[in-house]
Amino acid sequence: MQRSIATVSLSGTLPEKLEAIAAAGFDGVEIFENDLLYYAGSPREIRQRCADLGIAITLFQPFRDFEGCPRERLHKQLDRAERKFDLMQELGTDLVLVCSNVQPDALGDEQLLVEDLRLLAEHAGDRGLRIGYEALAWGRHINTYQQAWNLVRQADHPALGVILDSFHTLSLKGDPGAIRDIPGEKIFFVQMADAPILVMDVLEWSRHFRCFPGQGELDLAGFLAPILATGYRGPLSLEIFNDGFRAAPPRQNAADGLRSLLYLEEKTRLRLAHEAQAVDTLFAPPAASRYAGVEFLEFAVDEAVGARLASWLERLGFVAAGTHRSKAVSLLRQGDINIVLNAEPYSFAHNFFEAHGPSLCATALRVSDDQAALQRATAYRGQPFRGLVGPNEREIPAVRAPDGSLLYLVQTDDTGQSIYHSDFHLSAQARASGGLRRIDHMALALPAEALDSWVLFYKSLFDFGADDEVVLPDPYGLVKSRALRSPCASVRMPLNISENRNTAIAHALSSYRGSGVHHIAFECDDIFREVARAKDAGVPLLEIPLNYYDDLAARFDFDDEFLSELAYYNVLYDRDAQGGELFHVYTEAFEERFFFEILQRRGGYAGYGAANVAVRLAAMAKRRAGGGRKPVL
Amino acid sequence: MQRSIATVSLSGTLPEKLEAIAAAGFDGVEIFENDLLYYAGSPREIRQRCADLGIAITLFQPFRDFEGCPRERLHKQLDRAERKFDLMQELGTDLVLVCSNVQPDALGDEQLLVEDLRLLAEHAGDRGLRIGYEALAWGRHINTYQQAWNLVRQADHPALGVILDSFHTLSLKGDPGAIRDIPGEKIFFVQMADAPILVMDVLEWSRHFRCFPGQGELDLAGFLAPILATGYRGPLSLEIFNDGFRAAPPRQNAADGLRSLLYLEEKTRLRLAHEAQAVDTLFAPPAASRYAGVEFLEFAVDEAVGARLASWLERLGFVAAGTHRSKAVSLLRQGDINIVLNAEPYSFAHNFFEAHGPSLCATALRVSDDQAALQRATAYRGQPFRGLVGPNEREIPAVRAPDGSLLYLVQTDDTGQSIYHSDFHLSAQARASGGLRRIDHMALALPAEALDSWVLFYKSLFDFGADDEVVLPDPYGLVKSRALRSPCASVRMPLNISENRNTAIAHALSSYRGSGVHHIAFECDDIFREVARAKDAGVPLLEIPLNYYDDLAARFDFDDEFLSELAYYNVLYDRDAQGGELFHVYTEAFEERFFFEILQRRGGYAGYGAANVAVRLAAMAKRRAGGGRKPVL
Repeated sequence: MQRSIATVSLSGTLPEKLEAIAAAGFDGVEIFENDLLYYAGSPREIRQRCADLGIAITLFQPFRDFEGCPRERLHKQLDRAERKFDLMQELGTDLVLVCSNVQPDALGDEQLLVEDLRLLAEHAGDRGLRIGYEALAWGRHINTYQQAWNLVRQADHPALGVILDSFHTLSLKGDPGAIRDIPGEKIFFVQMADAPILVMDVLEWSRHFRCFPGQGELDLAGFLAPILATGYRGPLSLEIFNDGFRAAPPRQNAADGLRSLLYLEEKTRLRLAHEAQAVDTLFAPPAASRYAGVEFLEFAVDEAVGARLASWLERLGFVAAGTHRSKAVSLLRQGDINIVLNAEPYSFAHNFFEAHGPSLCATALRVSDDQAALQRATAYRGQPFRGLVGPNEREIPAVRAPDGSLLYLVQTDDTGQSIYHSDFHLSAQARASGGLRRIDHMALALPAEALDSWVLFYKSLFDFGADDEVVLPDPYGLVKSRALRSPCASVRMPLNISENRNTAIAHALSSYRGSGVHHIAFECDDIFREVARAKDAGVPLLEIPLNYYDDLAARFDFDDEFLSELAYYNVLYDRDAQGGELFHVYTEAFEERFFFEILQRRGGYAGYGAANVAVRLAAMAKRRAGGGRKPVL
Repeated sequence: MQRSIATVSLSGTLPEKLEAIAAAGFDGVEIFENDLLYYAGSPREIRQRCADLGIAITLFQPFRDFEGCPRERLHKQLDRAERKFDLMQELGTDLVLVCSNVQPDALGDEQLLVEDLRLLAEHAGDRGLRIGYEALAWGRHINTYQQAWNLVRQADHPALGVILDSFHTLSLKGDPGAIRDIPGEKIFFVQMADAPILVMDVLEWSRHFRCFPGQGELDLAGFLAPILATGYRGPLSLEIFNDGFRAAPPRQNAADGLRSLLYLEEKTRLRLAHEAQAVDTLFAPPAASRYAGVEFLEFAVDEAVGARLASWLERLGFVAAGTHRSKAVSLLRQGDINIVLNAEPYSFAHNFFEAHGPSLCATALRVSDDQAALQRATAYRGQPFRGLVGPNEREIPAVRAPDGSLLYLVQTDDTGQSIYHSDFHLSAQARASGGLRRIDHMALALPAEALDSWVLFYKSLFDFGADDEVVLPDPYGLVKSRALRSPCASVRMPLNISENRNTAIAHALSSYRGSGVHHIAFECDDIFREVARAKDAGVPLLEIPLNYYDDLAARFDFDDEFLSELAYYNVLYDRDAQGGELFHVYTEAFEERFFFEILQRRGGYAGYGAANVAVRLAAMAKRRAGGGRKPVL
């Protein structure tokens, strides 16, 4: 497909936008009129710049409030159109977006509107130009594509067609089904925008909260499928009005935009395949892998930090299970959990440590097909990574996550031979002392503006799903959390952001100088046994106020003894509507950077204890306010 | 009145909140349950801390989802209530807020609800406690105060009354008139919250966008007046759920809260007086002055900057009109405009210069009664300022603006003797070369989180009004603007904020290291004459792209010659719906800090040229991107 984006979707001056659009790999650009007004050069210079960059000008937009304007202004409006036609010819584009009249005094008589559109199309057609008519969701009389098509059909002029925009239809809960009734050649252009579902004024929603396909909640594949079914093969163009995008770095944002179109194409291809239709021009990456959890987590450390972190982990029940054959890398294990501490100089991990301090530098996902997974990731413009590999060591395919850390793709071996055998001296006698079974989830702290980009990355490259956003109160501001999960939920990653400066998330970010893991949760079968063991071993647990347990007593039928046990071990409790239960406990932070959670799920509890996040954040804030903490070990 | 605030309105830990509330001068506090849950000490410790701080605990809240709960849970819910009653007695408060049930399975039978409330009141009454029942706007069955009062009236128990919350009524466009039908002694508590008018889900609106009285658009005096008419004289309490407040410094925010209550009391007192009613306990400051424009603007400079700024101003048509008798201060004048350049060492201005660089350090307002104006300002907790005054020099009353700059209150002298005669050696021959007549407006750049605080400051201390917020696109993010204006609009101050890092407003803020004047607009009678003169004098004007004028040509019936003149002089044009016209032109920035605007209004144009802000911001961004600018003079 021809992939296009409107200049209004990006921040910066017009030349900055055009360069970002070309660099991202788009084929075309819609020129939003204001971007041109504010540009100091001529339209011809823009035409030349686009030609130099290899992008087509797919559309000029918008031309407003024409059809149905009061009769005494019609002549003046036609003059205005002719001036814009001049501009289009200088720009070298033949298509203008005319959006439905929103003026309070707009006339609504159907025949009059048909005649106005035909008149405009005649003027355009005389100059070899075309009119694309689009229904705005808040148009005075015309606000659905069905109405727009009805006028265009009656006007019946070759220079007149409709423009379809996903937001304008889906925001009003419109049914895209009737698009199939429009002949493909009468659809002149297609604009795609996603959005979170918000109960608010549709104009405000559209102007401030649109986002790239895959970042919101609209069914865009369900909108695009009937368009392609008509035979339409013109541009797919992103038109995103978003407050955050207006301030985001344009290159990164444009790259996200292209990825979002690829994602939409794949989803639409699958949808059409389901209906036994095929559109060859749609993006077709290898299917996503099946996932079987996290194979290992790798921390960037130096020798001293590595020793201290290993000591923490051993107190948490891990065992030192091996050392790397050729590198300063050690392996700790417990249950199905593998943690790698990488202190190798002149390595990726070392660079990561230099930049971010002690931090999670790699996550290894167990995939059903590592080569297909890598191909899919790179097809989605993921950046593959090849590290240094020693003789006889195994090379694991990897791509970079948005924060620069690595995502290894580990194909589980049919032989049952673990990936560690080739690279590590393993200690045969090593037995973990604890009963932690698996990595339940990794929570990341991200800059607020990065959340949508991360969600799109995992959705597209890895076919992860994203839960709805949850808002959580930190004593010093709100924290927002959105959890990613692999199909079947064997990998779970809550992403946390904060727009305020003094929250736990903000502190984590400033400590990392970038994104970073905030905490790692381990699942066990017996919370009290694990916590008792950890406590005895000297793991510092986050203290929970007794008032919390008084409230639990008021809310649930616990006997006093059980409540005392919860309180003694600082165990938090949550119960979902179906009776599923979560027991969980947090450690204090390891060197002010990240902390660990031990949890037990019962009865199908699927969440992350959102009801208890506020008390945890308050306890963490109290620890921070308590001044510089002394190292625990 | 007893002035109170809910802990949820402020950020921080519970002790931090209580200290801020006491410091602001509140009489009482509502303890929000979660704040207690997250606090590591006992309820008794909170009781003691409040006693030590001299604030009463006016209320404990909330107790949720009691009345109409499914019958099998009623017993458990009563148990839960008893546990909360224990807590209240430890806290030493006798009133609990019970909000209407929001559960999908809540029962709606009226007699059943009446009986449930009576039952709860009996349990509370037995312990000397009281139940205040509040209708949430999103309650399952009960969502208006009329419904709540209907149940309370029928339950007819001395320990049961209603709690009224302005948001829950006004958000649903409810009529507060029927409050007069409730006996004053059955109103147990009153919560006040303002909000901007937003078309969105009322629960989301309530949880994230409430604000202090006077910062939003609800008619709170119209809500409070009928309450007081019932004879209610209990606490007025602020309960504000606001994302920004959750992150704001609690001391400053609590001070704003108290000021907002005073403001509400004054407005309500005036409202009641209009109805020939009087409530003696309401705040009664001196009435606000009448204003007659800006007497002078004072810039903090040093000798070198002062010379360069004086040179700019002279090119703009000002004349050096005098020097101070005892200080390194000079006066420039043109028309009715007085500009003071203060380079005096060891002065307030000098300190301001050291902190913020060249900047506006004082604004003098012409008032009808300077002493009353000062009394009013200090009654509203404004901070009066007394500077050093030389012998025979005039002392001008002043208060500090929120950014630490000064607001002088200059009473216009009946003798016609200007305030400058006593303090300045004035040059009798000085004649300004330009035709600028008066200061039209001063635009300020503020940190985003400071806007509401500034609006409240000017509304309360000075009785200014605030226009609706306007959103304006900078190439690198959105800018929001809200204009303050004195009654009769002789003083106008647009306040501009930006949540993004790279906009013109953000650059101004980082340059000032604080708030600061962004530009100053001078009004004239003949824009072309003034601009031609300024251009000839070498004033650097901001260049506007020619494409802007092509668009003007398409939009308006200007002849080509007139358009060429607009373009030649970089004059921007706007026309309002009534045909009022604005012509305006901008200078480039003086040393990257602030700039000037010359404007001409015709036909009653009352705005600030919002339609042209985007092109101005784009032109400014281009200048910034153009690299370090060479000094112009």
